[in-house]
Amino acid sequence: MEKLKVAVVGYGNIGAYAMDAVNGAPDMELVGLVRRDGQTPQGVTIPVVDDIAKLPTKPDVALLCTPTRSVEEYAIKCLEQGICTVDSYDIHETIYELKMSLDAAAKKGGAAAIISAGWDPGTDSIVRAIMLASAPNGLTHTDFGPGMSMGHTVAAKAISGVKNALSMTMPMGYGVHRRDVYIELENGADFEKVKADLKADPYFATSETHVYKVDDVNVLIDKGHGVNMVRKGGAGKTQNQMLQWKMTIDNPALTSQIMTACARVAKRQGAGAYTMLEFPLIDLLPDSREEIIRALV
Amino acid sequence: MEKLKVAVVGYGNIGAYAMDAVNGAPDMELVGLVRRDGQTPQGVTIPVVDDIAKLPTKPDVALLCTPTRSVEEYAIKCLEQGICTVDSYDIHETIYELKMSLDAAAKKGGAAAIISAGWDPGTDSIVRAIMLASAPNGLTHTDFGPGMSMGHTVAAKAISGVKNALSMTMPMGYGVHRRDVYIELENGADFEKVKADLKADPYFATSETHVYKVDDVNVLIDKGHGVNMVRKGGAGKTQNQMLQWKMTIDNPALTSQIMTACARVAKRQGAGAYTMLEFPLIDLLPDSREEIIRALV
Repeated sequence: MEKLKVAVVGYGNIGAYAMDAVNGAPDMELVGLVRRDGQTPQGVTIPVVDDIAKLPTKPDVALLCTPTRSVEEYAIKCLEQGICTVDSYDIHETIYELKMSLDAAAKKGGAAAIISAGWDPGTDSIVRAIMLASAPNGLTHTDFGPGMSMGHTVAAKAISGVKNALSMTMPMGYGVHRRDVYIELENGADFEKVKADLKADPYFATSETHVYKVDDVNVLIDKGHGVNMVRKGGAGKTQNQMLQWKMTIDNPALTSQIMTACARVAKRQGAGAYTMLEFPLIDLLPDSREEIIRALV
Repeated sequence: MEKLKVAVVGYGNIGAYAMDAVNGAPDMELVGLVRRDGQTPQGVTIPVVDDIAKLPTKPDVALLCTPTRSVEEYAIKCLEQGICTVDSYDIHETIYELKMSLDAAAKKGGAAAIISAGWDPGTDSIVRAIMLASAPNGLTHTDFGPGMSMGHTVAAKAISGVKNALSMTMPMGYGVHRRDVYIELENGADFEKVKADLKADPYFATSETHVYKVDDVNVLIDKGHGVNMVRKGGAGKTQNQMLQWKMTIDNPALTSQIMTACARVAKRQGAGAYTMLEFPLIDLLPDSREEIIRALV
């Protein structure tokens, strides 16, 4: 069996984990790493380039481990060269627009783009769909965390007097979240003023927010995260069906693993852009269709 | 928008619930009920016939709510007339063989068959696939119940001296199940002997089994069931990812609701037979693709 040739684009939070996941896949070969500066990180022995077109082996699929706002630009570049892409674009409000944009580029280049592949959006989207199909009337509540919120951490760091910050999302149940914000102050900053400014910031003003002063934010950071999604709903005329999906996970490791499974999917679809609701899930797995059906159905 | 014309075949444990689910679907019209005896059940106002070909309106899709061993025969009959089918065939060992058989009939009739659509097989199969894609190395444990086991109840009823029985599957954690068997004795039967015979039966010999003598089995029966599936596994090189799917549900109501969602799927696939791993999940839902992606992804 010929192995799927996969390149990793970006070496930030997710890229290194994506390399682990591709190396662990029995049906894939990691053909290179693409970084803006083209520098080879310590311990990396595969080709590292600053432009995917310069890789010695042309990849079938590129895993886009770039910041979410750069996804569209990198994806279009790959797709137009006929290289399939997988991204974990996570701005929920504009996923449909990304799909439309990448769909056009993908059809032009004769490749497939799997978009918003991760856990939310991603596997959580799949769970939402099966919950809704199983119990069409009712309410779904989603709790995230405990885990670091990137957006709220950036917002906290932007407050005047803050040297470093960590904003944790704490699940309080049934979709309500508390923010626990840990702050290192600039020299001479007034904690009470910083705290008041932070609580008044639009990112925090509408949630219960606790602010703690600490000496060193970095020792508090771990990349664990979680989700607890609960649907209570009716099937037909029968009420009170309870469905639940819960995960406690390492955020970049899980995201990159799901992206890696989607590299298979990309190669198995026709040209176009697909969210995780738009392809058969059997395409996520390396085995034959018969093996998968016998093992999982 | 033209509504999907759906017929229900069978009026046993699942059929009546399937009628509720179809009636509750905004995009479907229930065009008839097919029963072996052709008799109209009390309160049913739609056409009831003994052969699907006799329905005044030809259905697009038939929901096969027959005993699992009759599925293949009924499905082939429908598919060869160009009527799509949905079944909840649940003999895991032969699902692939059913798929092959119905695939041929479906392609001959130019229709689609969605097979083994329910919760296990069904939505649990989907969850197994996303768990495996998310954490390829590790163990999944599935606990079922508390709930009635049809197979074990039949086995208990077959023991000499048993007038009526109920076998409950009790989840003891991480895939181990206890059997709690409630028994009404025939006049003059010896409980200790019946209990010993039952515990020696191949259905019960390998599990912890408790046998209780009761005056009336029927008052103990409810159709609630449940599942708790837990995967602990590694993503890339990162260990100990914990994923969990849990449901507490009314068994026939949930099964028939999922079958009803799959009626949409049938109409949206090309000719052939599909398990729930083999179609895009977006096809389960009644809204437009754009609406679904904006709401769920």
